[in-house]
Amino acid sequence: MSNRNISDLHPPSRILLGAGPSNVHPRVYQAMMAPILGHLDPDFLHIMDETKDLLRAVFRTQNEETIAVSGTGSAGMEAAVANLIEPGERAVVCVAGFFGDRIAEMASRYGAEVTRVEAEWGRIIEPEAVEAALKAASRTKLVAIVHAETSTGIHQPLDDIVRLTHEHGALLLVDAVTSLAGCELAVDDWGIDACHSASQKCLSCPPGTAPLTFSTRAVDALRSRETKVRSWYLDMTLLDNYWGGKRAYHHTAPMSMVYALREGLRLVLEEGLEARLGRHQRNGQALRAGLEAMGLTLHAQEAYRLPVITTVRVPDGIDDLKLRRALLYEHNIEIAGGLGPLAGKVWRIGLMGVASSAENVLAVLAALEQELSAQGFRLEKGAGVAAADRALGEG
Amino acid sequence: MSNRNISDLHPPSRILLGAGPSNVHPRVYQAMMAPILGHLDPDFLHIMDETKDLLRAVFRTQNEETIAVSGTGSAGMEAAVANLIEPGERAVVCVAGFFGDRIAEMASRYGAEVTRVEAEWGRIIEPEAVEAALKAASRTKLVAIVHAETSTGIHQPLDDIVRLTHEHGALLLVDAVTSLAGCELAVDDWGIDACHSASQKCLSCPPGTAPLTFSTRAVDALRSRETKVRSWYLDMTLLDNYWGGKRAYHHTAPMSMVYALREGLRLVLEEGLEARLGRHQRNGQALRAGLEAMGLTLHAQEAYRLPVITTVRVPDGIDDLKLRRALLYEHNIEIAGGLGPLAGKVWRIGLMGVASSAENVLAVLAALEQELSAQGFRLEKGAGVAAADRALGEG
Repeated sequence: MSNRNISDLHPPSRILLGAGPSNVHPRVYQAMMAPILGHLDPDFLHIMDETKDLLRAVFRTQNEETIAVSGTGSAGMEAAVANLIEPGERAVVCVAGFFGDRIAEMASRYGAEVTRVEAEWGRIIEPEAVEAALKAASRTKLVAIVHAETSTGIHQPLDDIVRLTHEHGALLLVDAVTSLAGCELAVDDWGIDACHSASQKCLSCPPGTAPLTFSTRAVDALRSRETKVRSWYLDMTLLDNYWGGKRAYHHTAPMSMVYALREGLRLVLEEGLEARLGRHQRNGQALRAGLEAMGLTLHAQEAYRLPVITTVRVPDGIDDLKLRRALLYEHNIEIAGGLGPLAGKVWRIGLMGVASSAENVLAVLAALEQELSAQGFRLEKGAGVAAADRALGEG
Repeated sequence: MSNRNISDLHPPSRILLGAGPSNVHPRVYQAMMAPILGHLDPDFLHIMDETKDLLRAVFRTQNEETIAVSGTGSAGMEAAVANLIEPGERAVVCVAGFFGDRIAEMASRYGAEVTRVEAEWGRIIEPEAVEAALKAASRTKLVAIVHAETSTGIHQPLDDIVRLTHEHGALLLVDAVTSLAGCELAVDDWGIDACHSASQKCLSCPPGTAPLTFSTRAVDALRSRETKVRSWYLDMTLLDNYWGGKRAYHHTAPMSMVYALREGLRLVLEEGLEARLGRHQRNGQALRAGLEAMGLTLHAQEAYRLPVITTVRVPDGIDDLKLRRALLYEHNIEIAGGLGPLAGKVWRIGLMGVASSAENVLAVLAALEQELSAQGFRLEKGAGVAAADRALGEG
């Protein structure tokens, strides 16, 4: 075949307010134009070191074992699970959404005896439920929980669960895919043992790397494994010899994605973590105010709503897919539909990284108003935007 | 911490003649500037389809299951192994270099009973040895072999091994990381069942995606597995539902890397596969002629030398690392050292993709001559470049 039918690449430039990927910062695109280096070139090793330093600052950790996994967020999740679970060990996995379920599935594939602690999709996991599961099992190696459940919009409190996990001698794995650099997260202060994230959410980079950090306790567990990590590609003992230590060849790091991540992290620190979290908080609040003023119902449990992704119920009689297609093609705005049991029942509106802006809040509210009206939903014209505007003014 | 100490990114622009990554084509960098899309945006799904079509053309296959794994070459290798091996099954793995050894290690981690068929590093695997291994085992599920062994410079013939593998009812997995688009490879005509590659070698893209194709027989084997694939991230049954079929959400594809791959593949087809292989052949031959004319000894078995990576012995008395550092810092040229038992004993000079040019052949020979002379190696001044020049003229 020839490639005559496959033209130059001109994808549309969208406002990405779905569940991620989110929009990429222009300086990140710029960084990706930097020339590729050899995977063991001293200049590249130095860039890896800088990236580790930046990751530590954003994760708020001193953990030596802090790297970027060469894959997307799910590869980071799998790396955490694969390294901390040996066949036959018990994992208590909190499942109150799609991504908790994914961790449970991975843990099971890596041979764990999985105890699922469940909650309704849209509610938090209660510490008492975790405690009961820990007490019921003889010995738990790992407790896993999602900090920002992208499928439900829930902001999961972690303090009691960290305490309970450690009281039972287990390690705590936290999925911070959607929370890192968008919600408060302090790996060391909070006592998290393993934490993974992704480049394409609040870091405003393209998908392709997955930040991962292991505490000393997690590294001790890793070093005292009786079996090899089943995944060679994600084996942290080998990865750590490339990202640090002996700088031994393992795989070839995706340089352009590391360059992107490094720039994304620099942008986070330039803005300042606190200011950045404040911006996400303010815009999330304004969005929620606007949605409610339009007469829509928020899905996530009150007081536990994420600033970075908002779930809102699809009103009765509204065609979910038709509305999302209209937003995409008429307004150039992507929002996400629901996953699993929430498919067709909620929309998920992300405000992450550079895409978390007052302009985007107002744009998505105006577009929603127009398309809801077009489908016959009755609302007070301009109420959503006005409420958001007020909230932004107060924020 | 602040990022005051971590400056703007300005990596040097090197001539990458190591074992990969190789230089990235300017049009590929350009494609990476295209805006990110949602991972289920119809426009992105269309780009994935185009990428599959292009991959099929370059792999020379009609295989429906032809995708780009969201990781680097080793992730592609692990995906092939993980999907085609169930615990307790037999794999015959040909090991005549570093990457054959890596496949054996992965197969073992995924629970295979591994029979290693070994050859000296720098010689081909003889079909008779594979036949003996197949006859000795009761039932073999998978035979795995490296087509272009980057660690030794060996170009492995595959025809007899395909035939023997199929006679014994096994599947053939071929590692084409370094051969795809640089050496002849015809997945369908040759009867290969699974074939994986990497973006950063002869495709002139950054590392970050791993082309992978499965024949109908491989897909049948996958579909009739009794156990789930141990790796969730690399599970081809799930990946295939994202890259085709139901377009169900699995992970978030690394868009920028897919854009890059798509452009790299377009460039291959624009040049034409045959012309491209001819260029690699010609430049590889000129490099070998030049190295021999300088009095150096090629390492790989004669008649089985790769055009895309050449192994040449480090002469007695020459400091390997010092010479490579001089090439890097004085001439801006990266070549690679040896791996495993060949560490310190050979250099590996890659001529892959856009980096396979007459200019680079002459540049590396001139630089080598200068740095070898500086270390007291006696050679006829200009002989290497002259011999290469002659070979280029004849080619």
